[in-house]
Amino acid sequence: MLDASAKGVYVIAPTPFHEDGRVDERSIDTMTDFFLGAGATGITVLGMMGEAPKLDAEEALAVAARVIERASVPVVVGVSAPGFAAMRTLTRAVMDKGAAGVMIAPPSSLKTDDQIVGYYANAAEAIGADVPFVIQDYPLSTGIVMTPGVIRRIVADNPGAVMLKHEDWPGLEKISTLRGFQADGSMRPISILCGNGGMFLDFETERGADGAMTGYAFPDMLADVVRLSAAGERDAAHDLFDAHLPYMRYEQQPGAGLAVRKYVLMRRGIIGSAALRKPGGGVSAKTRGEVDYLLARLARHDARAGDLRGA
Amino acid sequence: MLDASAKGVYVIAPTPFHEDGRVDERSIDTMTDFFLGAGATGITVLGMMGEAPKLDAEEALAVAARVIERASVPVVVGVSAPGFAAMRTLTRAVMDKGAAGVMIAPPSSLKTDDQIVGYYANAAEAIGADVPFVIQDYPLSTGIVMTPGVIRRIVADNPGAVMLKHEDWPGLEKISTLRGFQADGSMRPISILCGNGGMFLDFETERGADGAMTGYAFPDMLADVVRLSAAGERDAAHDLFDAHLPYMRYEQQPGAGLAVRKYVLMRRGIIGSAALRKPGGGVSAKTRGEVDYLLARLARHDARAGDLRGA
Amino acid sequence: MLDASAKGVYVIAPTPFHEDGRVDERSIDTMTDFFLGAGATGITVLGMMGEAPKLDAEEALAVAARVIERASVPVVVGVSAPGFAAMRTLTRAVMDKGAAGVMIAPPSSLKTDDQIVGYYANAAEAIGADVPFVIQDYPLSTGIVMTPGVIRRIVADNPGAVMLKHEDWPGLEKISTLRGFQADGSMRPISILCGNGGMFLDFETERGADGAMTGYAFPDMLADVVRLSAAGERDAAHDLFDAHLPYMRYEQQPGAGLAVRKYVLMRRGIIGSAALRKPGGGVSAKTRGEVDYLLARLARHDARAGDLRGA
Amino acid sequence: MLDASAKGVYVIAPTPFHEDGRVDERSIDTMTDFFLGAGATGITVLGMMGEAPKLDAEEALAVAARVIERASVPVVVGVSAPGFAAMRTLTRAVMDKGAAGVMIAPPSSLKTDDQIVGYYANAAEAIGADVPFVIQDYPLSTGIVMTPGVIRRIVADNPGAVMLKHEDWPGLEKISTLRGFQADGSMRPISILCGNGGMFLDFETERGADGAMTGYAFPDMLADVVRLSAAGERDAAHDLFDAHLPYMRYEQQPGAGLAVRKYVLMRRGIIGSAALRKPGGGVSAKTRGEVDYLLARLARHDARAGDLRGA
Repeated sequence: MLDASAKGVYVIAPTPFHEDGRVDERSIDTMTDFFLGAGATGITVLGMMGEAPKLDAEEALAVAARVIERASVPVVVGVSAPGFAAMRTLTRAVMDKGAAGVMIAPPSSLKTDDQIVGYYANAAEAIGADVPFVIQDYPLSTGIVMTPGVIRRIVADNPGAVMLKHEDWPGLEKISTLRGFQADGSMRPISILCGNGGMFLDFETERGADGAMTGYAFPDMLADVVRLSAAGERDAAHDLFDAHLPYMRYEQQPGAGLAVRKYVLMRRGIIGSAALRKPGGGVSAKTRGEVDYLLARLARHDARAGDLRGA
Repeated sequence: MLDASAKGVYVIAPTPFHEDGRVDERSIDTMTDFFLGAGATGITVLGMMGEAPKLDAEEALAVAARVIERASVPVVVGVSAPGFAAMRTLTRAVMDKGAAGVMIAPPSSLKTDDQIVGYYANAAEAIGADVPFVIQDYPLSTGIVMTPGVIRRIVADNPGAVMLKHEDWPGLEKISTLRGFQADGSMRPISILCGNGGMFLDFETERGADGAMTGYAFPDMLADVVRLSAAGERDAAHDLFDAHLPYMRYEQQPGAGLAVRKYVLMRRGIIGSAALRKPGGGVSAKTRGEVDYLLARLARHDARAGDLRGA
Repeated sequence: MLDASAKGVYVIAPTPFHEDGRVDERSIDTMTDFFLGAGATGITVLGMMGEAPKLDAEEALAVAARVIERASVPVVVGVSAPGFAAMRTLTRAVMDKGAAGVMIAPPSSLKTDDQIVGYYANAAEAIGADVPFVIQDYPLSTGIVMTPGVIRRIVADNPGAVMLKHEDWPGLEKISTLRGFQADGSMRPISILCGNGGMFLDFETERGADGAMTGYAFPDMLADVVRLSAAGERDAAHDLFDAHLPYMRYEQQPGAGLAVRKYVLMRRGIIGSAALRKPGGGVSAKTRGEVDYLLARLARHDARAGDLRGA
Repeated sequence: MLDASAKGVYVIAPTPFHEDGRVDERSIDTMTDFFLGAGATGITVLGMMGEAPKLDAEEALAVAARVIERASVPVVVGVSAPGFAAMRTLTRAVMDKGAAGVMIAPPSSLKTDDQIVGYYANAAEAIGADVPFVIQDYPLSTGIVMTPGVIRRIVADNPGAVMLKHEDWPGLEKISTLRGFQADGSMRPISILCGNGGMFLDFETERGADGAMTGYAFPDMLADVVRLSAAGERDAAHDLFDAHLPYMRYEQQPGAGLAVRKYVLMRRGIIGSAALRKPGGGVSAKTRGEVDYLLARLARHDARAGDLRGA
């Protein structure tokens, strides 16, 4: 079961599709295996970047179950839903299958601090007090800003709140503030794993984050950076990170970025096809050329970017 | 099957719950019977005001199926969903059960005219070209503004688009513009049923709307107003409407209004309990007092407001 | 100077324009005189419905100064601005001219409770601690929801915060909660005047509001309702209110309503022209017909609606 | 006067303040001189990142006039305002002082394609048909998404529309589409200068942009990249760009980034103080340490990052 000691890299898994839109089960397996080999300490499925809303209830459960079955690390399942009944139903099903916990983002309709705190109280009641959950703090997508004080209230109210998926932007000061809450005893410890495609991972770990929970096409690099940073090899961590940044920035474009990520995962041989389900386009010829150029430049510093097998 | 000739009052059905949050099946039946007796020409289930997002997939289908089974009028099912797979799954299931059509609202994330038009094209493909659907135009809730020109494009692109649930606010000029499009031959005829709790039904019918699709606690009054207006009895229609307006306005408060509506439906003996599922509160003692006062005043003009049986 | 004892009706004054868009100074005078005769206990200028953003800095000051000069009641000036420097400049100028206080709405960009509280602290510092101000709480327009607790914090932090322009929707429970804060000693007394075009004034006064601050075309009726309610003549207050509701609801349509209001003010002979500055349309022939019909019906209950002089 | 042939780097100038919040006029001069020496082909004042909304009308004009007076390159002035009267007043004043043109962003309240197009038509009428203007396309800040088709309509309708400040995100395909419109003759040529802090400048120029209009603390680097790219030295352009990216990304954090930028401009001796006007914080000790580390790393590749004089 997920708890506050979680660290390292929880890879946000995309959902692989065939060109015709069907879920690609074989690619789920190859992808899962790759993540394990890349040093993932956990895997998160059915996240926003996992095209979870494009699956129906049955498909969602099947995808989660397949990853849980195959993975030897904790699996977190995104269960954000328009209502608590659907959230509870999916949570119960995946916990039965062996999920380590679930992840919940606040809906865009919330308007005040109290509404956010109240939402998590209702959600925790719906999924059951014994289910560990991750607070997803992603204002760029949800429009909801949670102050450090609000996060502290959620943690205080709900024993199940054991992790923050941190992707506020900017967010470095927030990590420092939350770790300060722990230091002054006003908040129990939680795990903080960072998102935003890893764009600030180099400093997030230095601020006290426990690692990353995000979906970059080179999770192996994320794992290296977390490891180097934890080992105190600051310059080496930044050197590796900086080499990836030109491509990482390109992949991190809202909306368009997921198609780029899947294209590179496909080029790396991790999934069979770069296809997205509708709505969601592909990559243009110009984009493909730019990505290939970025990967070629990256390969001078990181050989993994040169080892491309997919079409 | 739903088509562009639909008119009258399609009542937006709430979902009745027991005090403990379980779906109240017996009340679904009494409510359905009441709507039929009240002059409903159709019933719409799983709409926003029907607490649809609070049901899980199985419950949603069961509620829709029960109303379809019992009703002798066309039943429209709200199938708005975060993704097309869930929309398709629910649509197929309810059409199999005998639904007359489905209703689709645009998600809040859409940003441009083209995105709105594209969304409906994808939705129509997902549910199947043979399924008639209602365009729900409700900016106060969705944040999405569809110009008359955008609606015309959606109608042109999708044979299944046969009805507009009109609840833009203000919206009278929009009805006139759309009927003008039909008159000048630039848009094929569609049915226009109006929402917003009926707050402008008196003039909407005069502007060319075919009736109402909304959830007021006195659907029998809505049916009367539509009938009187169609019969050319303008002053009588307004007299009845105006008598209801003080209470109607009270029920039409965003968020809080649904609890009021369920309270009055319960008082009228139409459903067994005023309970809402979480999140969603009840009515305070002060609110109850105000509603009772408004009903007492209304009863001087409309005896139905005085015939209260529920606790 | 404005203080927490303010009550009655503060009329939100529109800005009268000539047909060519110039400010109509003569109409400012006739309008001001009319408001005084109608029982206004105060006048508010440069509010959102006063087309304040359409005036440049010099015009805004001139309009405010002219009303202040002529009125024998307190004048509140809307000073909401994108930044504090412009807010301070306008505040100082109008206070010099004799304004009783200013009104400040939160900008749409605020995201958390703390940001709202911080915004008012900065605003109060900018305008000067000796200037009384009105907190404008209008979520439908600003998108900002202030909980009762946030309002209490603003009142506690800023001695200048003496009045709430209440136009949350729904808002009745909020009035009760705030009056409860006063009763339990957790908040010092403030004046609460209600907006939203008066649509809930009948119950707002019963909940403890001190009156209205809004812009209905019949401020004389608002004054009557507040007076009747204060005198304990509940049924009489509701009778008068209900007679106005069909037209009031029509005038209260977002965006379109201001043109309707100016049309009726013009018909009543209160201003010379119904013109709006761009952007902002007029009233269509159909709308004019509907308004005239509503006024004719209203005139059966309130002779003022039949006394039309303007073209 | 600004026209469609504009290219290179138009630096978005911050407004320098003293620690006590007064405008720092001497720093306006040193900053202007620096920009000219850095290869700026234009300067833009009173932009969003220039803290323009924090100035009152008189201050805004004074800042613009001082830069115009001193600069030997075209100066563009941001005139976005809540209403057209204020926009016209400022435009006339700065054009009188010698501005080359103005920049206009759409307000967040616009909801449809037609509203955006109509807004620019009204704005162009307000400022005068002879005044060249820049369309600011910055969805992350305004919330308004303009499709390429909408931009084409604005260009077609308004002879004054000569430049696009492109900062949609992602935005590379948009540049390609707009240049495609020019190639197929469906849109007259316009200048496209890119924003977003330069984060995609390396590819934007390759897609056909004419350069940058943004506010990075190393505008001299932006000028180099545009020059190298125009000279066909692709790898050299990317090498320089990539060296800056780790710091650039840090500066580009919404909200917090402006304080970082001013801190570095101060360290470079370009302005006298890093102070922001309220609301707006400074940089924490941790942030300062991170920025200093990033600059030290950058200095290994670009000596300008090592030449720090300010405190």
